[in-house]
Amino acid sequence: MVQPTRDDHFSFGLWTVGWPAADPFGTATRPWLDPVESVHRLSDLGAWGVTFHDDDLLPFGSTPDERSRILTRFRAALDETGLVVPMMTTNTFTHPVFKDGAFTSNDRGVRRFALRKILRNLDLAAELGASTYVFWGGREGAEVDSGKDIRAALDRYREGIDTLAAYVKEQGYGIRFAIEPKPNEPRGDILLPTLGHALAFIAGLEHGDIVGVNPEVGHEQMAGLNYSAGIAQALWAGKLFHLDLNGQRGIKYDQDLIFGHGDLINAFSLVDLIEHGAPGGGPAYDGPRHFDYKPLRTEDVTGVWDSAAANMRTYLLLKERAAAFRADPEVQAALATAGVAELSTPTLNPGETLADLAADRTAFEDYDADKAGERGYGFGKLNQLAVEHLMGAR
Amino acid sequence: MVQPTRDDHFSFGLWTVGWPAADPFGTATRPWLDPVESVHRLSDLGAWGVTFHDDDLLPFGSTPDERSRILTRFRAALDETGLVVPMMTTNTFTHPVFKDGAFTSNDRGVRRFALRKILRNLDLAAELGASTYVFWGGREGAEVDSGKDIRAALDRYREGIDTLAAYVKEQGYGIRFAIEPKPNEPRGDILLPTLGHALAFIAGLEHGDIVGVNPEVGHEQMAGLNYSAGIAQALWAGKLFHLDLNGQRGIKYDQDLIFGHGDLINAFSLVDLIEHGAPGGGPAYDGPRHFDYKPLRTEDVTGVWDSAAANMRTYLLLKERAAAFRADPEVQAALATAGVAELSTPTLNPGETLADLAADRTAFEDYDADKAGERGYGFGKLNQLAVEHLMGAR
Amino acid sequence: MVQPTRDDHFSFGLWTVGWPAADPFGTATRPWLDPVESVHRLSDLGAWGVTFHDDDLLPFGSTPDERSRILTRFRAALDETGLVVPMMTTNTFTHPVFKDGAFTSNDRGVRRFALRKILRNLDLAAELGASTYVFWGGREGAEVDSGKDIRAALDRYREGIDTLAAYVKEQGYGIRFAIEPKPNEPRGDILLPTLGHALAFIAGLEHGDIVGVNPEVGHEQMAGLNYSAGIAQALWAGKLFHLDLNGQRGIKYDQDLIFGHGDLINAFSLVDLIEHGAPGGGPAYDGPRHFDYKPLRTEDVTGVWDSAAANMRTYLLLKERAAAFRADPEVQAALATAGVAELSTPTLNPGETLADLAADRTAFEDYDADKAGERGYGFGKLNQLAVEHLMGAR
Amino acid sequence: MVQPTRDDHFSFGLWTVGWPAADPFGTATRPWLDPVESVHRLSDLGAWGVTFHDDDLLPFGSTPDERSRILTRFRAALDETGLVVPMMTTNTFTHPVFKDGAFTSNDRGVRRFALRKILRNLDLAAELGASTYVFWGGREGAEVDSGKDIRAALDRYREGIDTLAAYVKEQGYGIRFAIEPKPNEPRGDILLPTLGHALAFIAGLEHGDIVGVNPEVGHEQMAGLNYSAGIAQALWAGKLFHLDLNGQRGIKYDQDLIFGHGDLINAFSLVDLIEHGAPGGGPAYDGPRHFDYKPLRTEDVTGVWDSAAANMRTYLLLKERAAAFRADPEVQAALATAGVAELSTPTLNPGETLADLAADRTAFEDYDADKAGERGYGFGKLNQLAVEHLMGAR
Repeated sequence: MVQPTRDDHFSFGLWTVGWPAADPFGTATRPWLDPVESVHRLSDLGAWGVTFHDDDLLPFGSTPDERSRILTRFRAALDETGLVVPMMTTNTFTHPVFKDGAFTSNDRGVRRFALRKILRNLDLAAELGASTYVFWGGREGAEVDSGKDIRAALDRYREGIDTLAAYVKEQGYGIRFAIEPKPNEPRGDILLPTLGHALAFIAGLEHGDIVGVNPEVGHEQMAGLNYSAGIAQALWAGKLFHLDLNGQRGIKYDQDLIFGHGDLINAFSLVDLIEHGAPGGGPAYDGPRHFDYKPLRTEDVTGVWDSAAANMRTYLLLKERAAAFRADPEVQAALATAGVAELSTPTLNPGETLADLAADRTAFEDYDADKAGERGYGFGKLNQLAVEHLMGAR
Repeated sequence: MVQPTRDDHFSFGLWTVGWPAADPFGTATRPWLDPVESVHRLSDLGAWGVTFHDDDLLPFGSTPDERSRILTRFRAALDETGLVVPMMTTNTFTHPVFKDGAFTSNDRGVRRFALRKILRNLDLAAELGASTYVFWGGREGAEVDSGKDIRAALDRYREGIDTLAAYVKEQGYGIRFAIEPKPNEPRGDILLPTLGHALAFIAGLEHGDIVGVNPEVGHEQMAGLNYSAGIAQALWAGKLFHLDLNGQRGIKYDQDLIFGHGDLINAFSLVDLIEHGAPGGGPAYDGPRHFDYKPLRTEDVTGVWDSAAANMRTYLLLKERAAAFRADPEVQAALATAGVAELSTPTLNPGETLADLAADRTAFEDYDADKAGERGYGFGKLNQLAVEHLMGAR
Repeated sequence: MVQPTRDDHFSFGLWTVGWPAADPFGTATRPWLDPVESVHRLSDLGAWGVTFHDDDLLPFGSTPDERSRILTRFRAALDETGLVVPMMTTNTFTHPVFKDGAFTSNDRGVRRFALRKILRNLDLAAELGASTYVFWGGREGAEVDSGKDIRAALDRYREGIDTLAAYVKEQGYGIRFAIEPKPNEPRGDILLPTLGHALAFIAGLEHGDIVGVNPEVGHEQMAGLNYSAGIAQALWAGKLFHLDLNGQRGIKYDQDLIFGHGDLINAFSLVDLIEHGAPGGGPAYDGPRHFDYKPLRTEDVTGVWDSAAANMRTYLLLKERAAAFRADPEVQAALATAGVAELSTPTLNPGETLADLAADRTAFEDYDADKAGERGYGFGKLNQLAVEHLMGAR
Repeated sequence: MVQPTRDDHFSFGLWTVGWPAADPFGTATRPWLDPVESVHRLSDLGAWGVTFHDDDLLPFGSTPDERSRILTRFRAALDETGLVVPMMTTNTFTHPVFKDGAFTSNDRGVRRFALRKILRNLDLAAELGASTYVFWGGREGAEVDSGKDIRAALDRYREGIDTLAAYVKEQGYGIRFAIEPKPNEPRGDILLPTLGHALAFIAGLEHGDIVGVNPEVGHEQMAGLNYSAGIAQALWAGKLFHLDLNGQRGIKYDQDLIFGHGDLINAFSLVDLIEHGAPGGGPAYDGPRHFDYKPLRTEDVTGVWDSAAANMRTYLLLKERAAAFRADPEVQAALATAGVAELSTPTLNPGETLADLAADRTAFEDYDADKAGERGYGFGKLNQLAVEHLMGAR
């Protein structure tokens, strides 16, 4: 019932289960995990895909021979298990060279180096059949307002993304880009801090047609924003190319908890949205259900695999609950009381002009605003129904 | 020296000095303030403009006669003082009818009523010569995820803005729209919660050419975002049509403090940016310096006028400090060390293609990343120079 | 099953269901609710008690005759329904006189007036049989650091509480005080901002033996704190005299949502704690389950009563889930793996001194810290079990 | 003028300038710094003291010989420079063994090991003449509500602190303990999350007389709390034994910026408070001015020393500004208008009882609350004076 299958399209970053669990105040508590082992274990658990940064698989500075050997082993694991690589990304944040950013480092040499590092890995992504390439600009930012010319930084960001997008088109790679926003950490303030800022940036690109967003639950919640509402705006803009599922308990450091282990009610509305689309219709999300979480630093390797399974299990439980919620006649009655579907009706009548509206006395002069202000929308009852479905109590 | 003049283009909302100081837990502590008196007092203090919501001047439900009489008195005050009305806006949040929103209320009758209320006030704005019309959608949102179809809501928001923008063009009003984002309060989550989300929304409009943003210091900071960085992105997008200056002390309820009485360092970088433009060039902001603050509830009418003066005085002090900062050779040396100007140089050489870059061994194969990672950017020193200039200590 | 009864000890503030739904940006959307009607409706829904501020029942400035008449009607309603008044409190925040505080207003006349207002209402509380008197010092604070001498303010706070506590003892009222912390709103920063600060303050009182805390879910969460962890500290200190249940969605304005409509996972652990006590033993909370929430401003009177019922229903569902969680052998195994019970064993052996410990080579010299660092606590799995119980999935 | 001297009592942690700048997403960007060099450099810059965790100086697992050799060199540097070691602390967070805490790890062996590690270092602290021993319980906490029995954890915390405090008394070390609160990071929720919680905990100790708090600017601000207000409560409780100065820009990960590079206005009121005491009198803070910050990861070694100097310089500038603020007659007039000193007058008259107050009709029956509610406190003007002094504009 809540046993994941390939059809669920669950994917995991190699860096998630493979995180050795060093944090700002402590050293690693777990050993390095062989990516090949991760592929096999994830496959056994029912995952469908695996994703990675270049350096997760191919250590920074590997020689061509080392790269080749590692890749051969890795491909073999993919072949044996049937796992796919739906998404790839570049690490432009760990090495000190990127300490002031990659696309937007004040140091031009760093920017050129970053472009090359990404370029090489894009070619690999194409080889491995990835259809999405994620850009998380974790180092693109500043702690100090006067240290970064934001206007120039956005110019360079655009230059970088557009240049690479043009390349992908030229090569016919069939890859789309997805920008992953984050408000802060590791930088004091990161460029494109929310999915809104990223969508706005994309709208100014030359090759924005193949660029969308990859919003992460915790990243949006670190800015106190409603994740499922943000996802709805990304869907509305036709730009939800990928997403990162995890958990976060409020505005604090990036926790990367197991999906559902943070704001469970918002996780419920998210799964409802991406599985079923908006209440009034519109596309659901059909991409990978990608988990970008970290097993707690207190866990050993058994705990790592338990946590991987927990992500998928919570997702499937929420999916079940959301389906029951949508089907419940009492919910439908409450949605009707709340006027949720009414919002899909345009405000103007078909063919009505503003002049027509201005002439409609029922809309204004004869409209009883006080009376209309008494309407009870019943949102509290509707939410209680959602909570009870979430709790399996209906 | 720090005496405001008309040339400083300081403007105030009537609702700021006129706020009677009721809050969620207390009743009004100050009497209603006659807008005509406000105009005179603001003029005496050196302000240049006054702005308002329809209901600030013309009580909800006023008869045509009442409206006419009030407007005549108000215009006379403008004429006597020379104050202008650079911006106007509509109150679509106080009356109960708007409790679930205006453009995006689930109730279609409310949406039609809202359009009419705005339409009438737009005509007045044109009459009074306002060049900016602000839309703060404080009630466009939800407390409950399932109560609002976000996709439909964005459709209705777009319908509303585009319909009105088309009208403004047809009438030749010469008015531009400015959307004011806010993350929450009075709704649990508000649509278009940050300036990023608003810019993204605008990019999807039919008449987006005359639609920009009106970011408020406190609203962005309520999401933990860097205000001056956000303003820089709005300038980069060519969409900073107006702004709201005030103060906020962190992530909490909307405080609307005096400008500078919140994050003073960010206020410094903001004034530096809008007065001088980005360090590497690019346009400064040339619109009104508009204060959208609230005199504390503990103040009497004397305190109200003191606070109005304080906003302008702080702005002018910051402007002085920012000019000295830009001119200081030690600052320029620190900017050079930090590579701030270097970021304006494109990453690719003129005419260079990605293929060229791929062939440039100095960019990657022969690039000493470890060495480059040792560079000291000196951001701390640069910020210390900013702090000392801000403190008048240099 | 999840039908509330008197034995559940559910109580509601008159100001909750009676809130007319004005907020900082909007006027009231609901009519005044007769407290007598509230008593009857709450009784019908299964509540056990009703609580109130003086002004909720007896309008500010009522004459003795008015007070008498209102009280007679109110007592009759209590008698008819059997509802009790387990807690009362004073409104020292709505009237402008309290704009700078009550116990700690800079104005001494206000402080004296406040003491008198509280005193009168304490007598009424004793008459009505209340056993808890709550102090929420919402106006005790400042927006401006230099405007409040915090040291003097704490002296005055102590003077006020100690004076009143001495009075209660002298009168033999059998009433205990409970201080309700809040970090901010309506003041920029409120004195005793968290339950920790309040507990520390109480420790410095002369009559602290009858003074405890009344922590509210949303208030602690507005500071990003873990509510159930705070409640555990209050229980540990023997000071959990009362509590306020509601919901909050992160760090923002005070939402006062229905209980469980915010951080549902923390609500689960809270109910588990107050119903069953700490895992290793220790007292559970045996006071009223008091709801201090606000029906959404979008609701009509039907929505008000639906929301009152929802609070109780969610509590009872969580109570069921928590009991199943505690009883589940798989949970107990996970608790054992995590060593949760092990923490109840003192670190030193019975009778062991530090010198003994210093001589125990197994504790240090021969202790294999690296090996011990490999232990897997399995917290992720344990939490997944909690989430699945919460979801009714086990 | 703003040149630090020994008399300023500035101290730095070895771990501050010595931080190699690895963060959750990146490896170290700076080399290990020899503590002996740090002592000399800090001395040259005008510092007075140096503080450290055991492991900062003596690597985890050092042999007795290694310890002896390192200590000899270190003492020599102290002797040469005249720097003192006013405070020491233990690292109970970096090694994996502490991943679930030290005093409150669920694993009893870990708790015993931690006690021993602290004990050994306490002896060293006594040898080096430290008068304060800090306990930052960064790992004492949980990510998962059900994984930690908070009641048992507080018992163990108390056992640990009381046992060690008894030891310090027995040995006659003359050392006082100072607990350093933090709300979260590296744990999801940390025990004793604010200075309030720590003060409350201390009140329940057997040997609480020698236990106080060590509040850090950023830690309190990570919970959205007003640092200088918290410091005032700690002073009021007689428990401000030490403090950690740095900067933080709002609620996010722990930034450890240079002092003053975060909330500058609160830094101003803090320096005013600890230099001059509360406005109405009461003790100022006379302990070390200790900086617990991190040079940005983007800095090289030059930037490290620049940042160390910047901390002291900002402090001295604020001290100058605060002295001028206190001396300004216009400020004194504004303080009088605000009634700041009036708050030091008890609410009851000398010898007045509650019964007397109850009989004073001027306090209540004849008190004109409406009139009193009209008082203007002028807090806005007062704050503007503070801001202008801070900016050196008066």
